[in-house]
Amino acid sequence: MTIPRILIQLDTDPQPSTFDGVVAVDAGVDQLFRHGGICEETVAGLVHGAMFTRGGEGLKSTALFIGGTDVQAGERVLAAVQDTFFGPVRVSVMLDSNGCNTTASAAVLSAAKHLDLKQSTVLVLGGTGPVGQRVARLLSRQGAAVKMGSRDHGRAHQAAAEVSVGLEGANLSAVTTAGNDALQLALEDCDAVISSGAAGVQIVDKGTLHHNKHLRLAIDLNAVPPLGIEGIQATDKGRDCDGVIVYGALGVGGLKMKIHHAAVKALFTANDQVLDADHIYAIGEQVIGKSKL
Amino acid sequence: MTIPRILIQLDTDPQPSTFDGVVAVDAGVDQLFRHGGICEETVAGLVHGAMFTRGGEGLKSTALFIGGTDVQAGERVLAAVQDTFFGPVRVSVMLDSNGCNTTASAAVLSAAKHLDLKQSTVLVLGGTGPVGQRVARLLSRQGAAVKMGSRDHGRAHQAAAEVSVGLEGANLSAVTTAGNDALQLALEDCDAVISSGAAGVQIVDKGTLHHNKHLRLAIDLNAVPPLGIEGIQATDKGRDCDGVIVYGALGVGGLKMKIHHAAVKALFTANDQVLDADHIYAIGEQVIGKSKL
Amino acid sequence: MTIPRILIQLDTDPQPSTFDGVVAVDAGVDQLFRHGGICEETVAGLVHGAMFTRGGEGLKSTALFIGGTDVQAGERVLAAVQDTFFGPVRVSVMLDSNGCNTTASAAVLSAAKHLDLKQSTVLVLGGTGPVGQRVARLLSRQGAAVKMGSRDHGRAHQAAAEVSVGLEGANLSAVTTAGNDALQLALEDCDAVISSGAAGVQIVDKGTLHHNKHLRLAIDLNAVPPLGIEGIQATDKGRDCDGVIVYGALGVGGLKMKIHHAAVKALFTANDQVLDADHIYAIGEQVIGKSKL
Repeated sequence: MTIPRILIQLDTDPQPSTFDGVVAVDAGVDQLFRHGGICEETVAGLVHGAMFTRGGEGLKSTALFIGGTDVQAGERVLAAVQDTFFGPVRVSVMLDSNGCNTTASAAVLSAAKHLDLKQSTVLVLGGTGPVGQRVARLLSRQGAAVKMGSRDHGRAHQAAAEVSVGLEGANLSAVTTAGNDALQLALEDCDAVISSGAAGVQIVDKGTLHHNKHLRLAIDLNAVPPLGIEGIQATDKGRDCDGVIVYGALGVGGLKMKIHHAAVKALFTANDQVLDADHIYAIGEQVIGKSKL
Repeated sequence: MTIPRILIQLDTDPQPSTFDGVVAVDAGVDQLFRHGGICEETVAGLVHGAMFTRGGEGLKSTALFIGGTDVQAGERVLAAVQDTFFGPVRVSVMLDSNGCNTTASAAVLSAAKHLDLKQSTVLVLGGTGPVGQRVARLLSRQGAAVKMGSRDHGRAHQAAAEVSVGLEGANLSAVTTAGNDALQLALEDCDAVISSGAAGVQIVDKGTLHHNKHLRLAIDLNAVPPLGIEGIQATDKGRDCDGVIVYGALGVGGLKMKIHHAAVKALFTANDQVLDADHIYAIGEQVIGKSKL
Repeated sequence: MTIPRILIQLDTDPQPSTFDGVVAVDAGVDQLFRHGGICEETVAGLVHGAMFTRGGEGLKSTALFIGGTDVQAGERVLAAVQDTFFGPVRVSVMLDSNGCNTTASAAVLSAAKHLDLKQSTVLVLGGTGPVGQRVARLLSRQGAAVKMGSRDHGRAHQAAAEVSVGLEGANLSAVTTAGNDALQLALEDCDAVISSGAAGVQIVDKGTLHHNKHLRLAIDLNAVPPLGIEGIQATDKGRDCDGVIVYGALGVGGLKMKIHHAAVKALFTANDQVLDADHIYAIGEQVIGKSKL
């Protein structure tokens, strides 16, 4: 007899996400415990219930999923969850608030289909936000030179400093991207640009995008028009746009969804996993290998 | 491998209804996502999660159920849900706040067992409320002459106007039912009366009910005594009460429950259904045909 | 075809307990309806949904579980639930707020492994709290002489009076336990002491515990150090501590968990059970008999 797989959905929004719930069911979760309105102050009791009910091998059949639209709130909950564990008495946990980790992983894996990241320079727009930081981190770990762009000089540098923690030998720099001239300069030596700025705000117009004749790839992670990069459609998936290969949010969405499924499944293979950006990217690599995407 | 059937319960009350939950489970739903405190302003995100997780054929394995004690709040949520869909990217949705549609359908189907509705005149008491309006609408669609009664003249006329929208050729009128004389007059030429007034308020006394010697049927949809029509018991199911066939809330409850089950099942046969009064009545007709009730 | 077993979790805390949820799943519940923020004023509607959806034999496939950290709030909800039932139209219900009944049962059954309760005198510390009162009640019903200890004289007497209701022939007394001298006096003629005081407060030091050379058993139900009785570890399970057999909270936890599972399973064997201290203790006796613990 197998132990039912229970996923405890810890969502920082008032109503727990139905999106994350449906994916969990489709990933084979038997019982979903769905909690909204979660914050770091009150999560401990819910974690204890996961820790103290099933011993030994049973621990790996209970897992935690942290979601909600606010990625930083999710990160605080993840920290609180890890503080609650002690020693081997723990369960696996995944963070994917606002789809941050599955989206960033899908974007970087999509880029890697077209570029040798080790030989590439990539500008990350909206690089100070949590998705942008994850994209920058994953690119750096794959050996790319990364330029983190923000309209605000100080925030760009701070984000670059935060992302570089633990990444020895990373080639990470900060660039200011306020205005078309600054953007053209930032794009000058880039092979690719990935935009993860705020929804519905255009950052790069068509002229600026095509100013650098060597640019080969552009990915825009916003789904709500107008997109951050003019000329990209949300449904673009490797389309040639005047010599630049472009992806939109829905274009990377198929891979993102496969990674999300695989990550939830992976939660139940051991009781001590913490699935944040790096692990979820590694799961994405397996997904691609498996599905020969 | 079949895709698990997920029903997302969108309830406008603080706690989602256990009644609707149990019926959903018994109708074969595999996973219930239960949400309380739903309103039209915040429902879009929950609908998106249903729309964007399972493509194509998979869309019909996710559905929405709108419930709660406040029918008008449920109607506003239904409108917001339909606004959220776009094109073929949608899932099926059912409204049954306060059991309004299943109850109204069961009442009218019960009446149709004893009367030829096309040849009948029916007084609907409490006709301005959402259940009364549904009863009136369904009766009209079956060809009955319908008199919508309210103590308030203006509200009766407004309700009749609202219900008649889209019902060409309907014989719908409004009557004021304040006081026994007015009630007797309203009942004068009626074959049946269906009461769906506020819980615990008696509208028609025994003398008034039996004043019209031609009245053949009386149905009272309140379950909490005193009922709206004196002499009817909640459990009455086709009982002869001094020459009038009477039904109480529990008496139509068995059929109501079967319709509720069948409607939830029907949600998962296609991804584009909107189950409100008319569709749920049609499902009820099939239920009766099937069960030879 | 079997009817799915639905357990409605009624939790008085804002978030429903994951602990109780996991145990329910492991006890074979098919569908969990999890409700937080429950209070006696608003529970009736949720109970109606359990009562009026499945008739006859089906009623025993729906059950209620009352939990949350506040035992007295849970007791008020249990009273409200029972007020909502009428006649045979009811479902089974279990109260285990803060694990009170399963913990008290496991503690008394653990004591009974080492002592002939009919021949024993037991001091219950923290005897005025809901767990202490349940321990005292269960000990009395097994024939033990029970001394209910509290730092407050009046509360000790009141608790003894409350517990003795319905226990004819019980040997129940109240003792004041403020200070070591009073504690030593209270322990003088005791065979065992069971502590269920507030978390993290030491009540009995080592010297006081061993002052009575005839004391054979000490159980401490707090899991958070410092425990109520100095020298006991939370993991102790029948350890010899200078001649006294000692148990900690985790030491009785294995049996507590088995009782919890068995009680949830028992809910679905009939539709009219009210599982509070006495019934849950009886289930614990069967668990021990079955598992030859």
